[in-house]
Amino acid sequence: MTGGDGPTIKWWGWGDSERRVQLGADAVAMLRSELGEAEPTERASLDQVIVPPPRPLPREIADAVGPAAVLTSREHRVRRAAGRSYPDLVRLRSGRLERAPDAIVLPGSAGEVARVLEICSRDGIAVVPFGGGTSVVGGVEPWRGDFDGLVSLDLRRLRGVEVDERSLVATLGSGLRGPEAEDALAAEGVTLGHFPQSFEYATIGGFAATRSAGQASSGYGRFDELVTAVSLIAPEGELRTLRTPHSAAGPALRELVLGSEGTLGVITAVSARVRPVPERRRYEGWMASDFESGMEIVRSLAQGGLLPDVVRLSDEAETRVSLALSGTGGAKRALLASYLRFRRRAHGCLMICGWEGAQAAVERRRGLAGVGLRAGGAAALGQAPGHAWERSRYEGPYLRDELLDLGYMVETLETAHTWSRLGGLYDGVRAAIGAALAAGGTPGIVMCHLSHAYPDGASLYFTVLARRRPGQELEQWRDVKSTACQAIVESGGTITHHHAVGRDHAPYMRAEIGELGLGTLRAVKERLDPAGIMNPGKLLG
Amino acid sequence: MTGGDGPTIKWWGWGDSERRVQLGADAVAMLRSELGEAEPTERASLDQVIVPPPRPLPREIADAVGPAAVLTSREHRVRRAAGRSYPDLVRLRSGRLERAPDAIVLPGSAGEVARVLEICSRDGIAVVPFGGGTSVVGGVEPWRGDFDGLVSLDLRRLRGVEVDERSLVATLGSGLRGPEAEDALAAEGVTLGHFPQSFEYATIGGFAATRSAGQASSGYGRFDELVTAVSLIAPEGELRTLRTPHSAAGPALRELVLGSEGTLGVITAVSARVRPVPERRRYEGWMASDFESGMEIVRSLAQGGLLPDVVRLSDEAETRVSLALSGTGGAKRALLASYLRFRRRAHGCLMICGWEGAQAAVERRRGLAGVGLRAGGAAALGQAPGHAWERSRYEGPYLRDELLDLGYMVETLETAHTWSRLGGLYDGVRAAIGAALAAGGTPGIVMCHLSHAYPDGASLYFTVLARRRPGQELEQWRDVKSTACQAIVESGGTITHHHAVGRDHAPYMRAEIGELGLGTLRAVKERLDPAGIMNPGKLLG
Repeated sequence: MTGGDGPTIKWWGWGDSERRVQLGADAVAMLRSELGEAEPTERASLDQVIVPPPRPLPREIADAVGPAAVLTSREHRVRRAAGRSYPDLVRLRSGRLERAPDAIVLPGSAGEVARVLEICSRDGIAVVPFGGGTSVVGGVEPWRGDFDGLVSLDLRRLRGVEVDERSLVATLGSGLRGPEAEDALAAEGVTLGHFPQSFEYATIGGFAATRSAGQASSGYGRFDELVTAVSLIAPEGELRTLRTPHSAAGPALRELVLGSEGTLGVITAVSARVRPVPERRRYEGWMASDFESGMEIVRSLAQGGLLPDVVRLSDEAETRVSLALSGTGGAKRALLASYLRFRRRAHGCLMICGWEGAQAAVERRRGLAGVGLRAGGAAALGQAPGHAWERSRYEGPYLRDELLDLGYMVETLETAHTWSRLGGLYDGVRAAIGAALAAGGTPGIVMCHLSHAYPDGASLYFTVLARRRPGQELEQWRDVKSTACQAIVESGGTITHHHAVGRDHAPYMRAEIGELGLGTLRAVKERLDPAGIMNPGKLLG
Repeated sequence: MTGGDGPTIKWWGWGDSERRVQLGADAVAMLRSELGEAEPTERASLDQVIVPPPRPLPREIADAVGPAAVLTSREHRVRRAAGRSYPDLVRLRSGRLERAPDAIVLPGSAGEVARVLEICSRDGIAVVPFGGGTSVVGGVEPWRGDFDGLVSLDLRRLRGVEVDERSLVATLGSGLRGPEAEDALAAEGVTLGHFPQSFEYATIGGFAATRSAGQASSGYGRFDELVTAVSLIAPEGELRTLRTPHSAAGPALRELVLGSEGTLGVITAVSARVRPVPERRRYEGWMASDFESGMEIVRSLAQGGLLPDVVRLSDEAETRVSLALSGTGGAKRALLASYLRFRRRAHGCLMICGWEGAQAAVERRRGLAGVGLRAGGAAALGQAPGHAWERSRYEGPYLRDELLDLGYMVETLETAHTWSRLGGLYDGVRAAIGAALAAGGTPGIVMCHLSHAYPDGASLYFTVLARRRPGQELEQWRDVKSTACQAIVESGGTITHHHAVGRDHAPYMRAEIGELGLGTLRAVKERLDPAGIMNPGKLLG
């Protein structure tokens, strides 16, 4: 049991250190021209990183899980000291970490989880459940709250896989990473169809705890829509919901556990609907005349029950920038070739549409959606942009590391609203971020895509690029983030569609669910975790 | 403000007293032959009904809602003294009611609801929210718990209708009955598509509070799937969720309110997804060879994404009995004519399949489902059985009144499970009910249909007919009900798929959600309703 991510996993950034998404000279030139010359961001080496010394933990924890399942080396502590938000990356690169867990504990079963929580609850030790560590909202930050000790509870050993082929339901251990779960399911001929950008590292438990949404959510559903049952070990005991397809026996406790972000207990297993591995996947590009008409196309497809399984519509800014930043290889050339054929739409909006399933169903649904796309004024770009998107679908966070190296800030944030309010939300958030950047003296690029569409609305995902303010990275980020969040709250949108709350969005929960809503969640927490040890400072602040 | 249901609404049974579903002589003969000669059930006249005298309530309640909105006549109290379960009907017909509300209060706004709850909370007066009064699980029983006073809070004056046509979301007052809501929506060209058997009398608030499922749930979704936002007035304040299509901001409070059955507060408004009124509705009959192969057909359609919007599969017993009991008019003859053409399948299982939507989509989907139906060995019966079903879709409870008149017990109960466990659940429940009836000396008919199908499972709806045991009706019912519930619990099925919990299922909630699950819901209740006045004795026991 190394408990490590392996030496090739970056401790300071995203994913595999041997994988890079290099920016071409023209991309760098574009960034410099639009954002200004930036000072490259240095990063400390691992042996330079300063973390607070660990505090001793009760020996009973090691007794509960076995001594090999308690890790206390500096490297292990550094590797569980942060998630993967922009401020996390800034802090990691700086080499000065204010907080780190005292130990990493790797329980091997739900029973061991229960025993560890019992000890920590008794002794007042904070517990941060840790899956893939990919949170971009401070969800795994080792925040001690009122406690002296803090354990990072790494769930990677919870790896059960049980497939009910007849019911198409899989029960999965919460510690399985996306590819591990999919590999096990593929051996049975099925898939969850849940592929968020964090897929390669995030875990089943994390998907459930944060209400993750995958890139094919229109077709397969968000993760919380796939889940039929959960098992939660709380300090006060086990909460387990029935595996029936539905129940009208009162409020849905499953929906209390989903999105609980480790604050109520530890999700140890999840039952979720699976589907046969699709016989065919077809992704293609379309170009809408502008963002507004593109949104109308998606609305009409969603309300007509004709949504592709993957549907992503970039606004003008994202279309332009993603073409400029996309890899230097064949993908970009293919994309450009298609794009240039439609150069009369130089200010158009790229859409990626994807269908998965049996060949005949894919063709039938694609034909029906194509009618709607054309009726809305979109032009087909063929499969090349679809392939390019598919190849790069998990690359965003790698690109972010490159941009940080060059000295640029990259922040992403997302929200959702009904169709009738989506345009106002889009305008409001863009204007607010633009103003915040300008006020800080670093005018930037604000770009957006619409994804995760529903009959009643959709989510908007914003990416913000700006020259970093050396030495003031966190203040700069906070300005942008809080201004954007305020604009979202003022528009009546949700503070998060699928990134979850963590620490970063906790101040906006009052606006989201009201004082009594917060009080209700606190009452649940007090019942399940009376000592308050579970993931302090997250979700409920 | 009469607050009454109008003189034609039965106080002792279901619906309109001028509407009857008469049984033909052959149907009566069949019942007598199979269930034995029964002693007709008498019923008291309204002026014979004995109710406990009302206790005085604080005058501030009348001040809050206006004196005309507080009703205390005996008739009004009788009309709010029970739901519409079989034991409710037995008690109503007996003319001896152990319990009735002290007054019926009809608040005209959410603000008035808040004021009434404040007064009742302060003075320790139980509050039973009352929508259509159609509960079949004791959900509106005026159970006082520890309180002296009890108010039936009739919500019929909460009738707002607001349609966001662009987002296809309607916000509806909780007091609107099904037809009232649909009429208002139809004026805007949209529909909820929610048509449970109780549709003609049940309310929007009741649908939400009980997680109702309509007959077209496969196409439109259950009511809890349609709801995007709720407003709840609790004694401690208002809980209101955002109207965004989705949020990852923590546990879903909406899902705590849905299914809360009036125990946490009063649902005053519900936002729900609507759809354009379908251009075409096509219902047709199919005959499966047997229940097992019929279930396999439904499973395959559900897992292939090819479910009709309405899909109902009767088992052999229900097919036979419903043909025998169906009306004496053209409907039955048409059904029989189709049926007899397939008489080689005299022991087959009737399926009703319905499609709704644009003409082309209906035909396309019908064609695809037809392939699956035939592949599973089902034979098409044409539209006549579909029309017959459509005409009689809300008649079940009227038929029950007729059967009671004749002296028969009629109990319905429902559950759900995954496909891999559904056969075992079916066998277990049938056997248990059969044994209970036999032990009571009244062997009966146990029949079942599968409806509300999902990719991972389906619900089973059982109907039990037996000769009533005069003077021991409630004991007889309790024997059957508790045996059936026990069998459901032992099979791991849910205690209710869409009838909710009320008083009747409350003893099984521990099996359903566990001790800690119960404790969690109680913690929520204590936070929202610390005095415990909201619908005592329901859901949490």
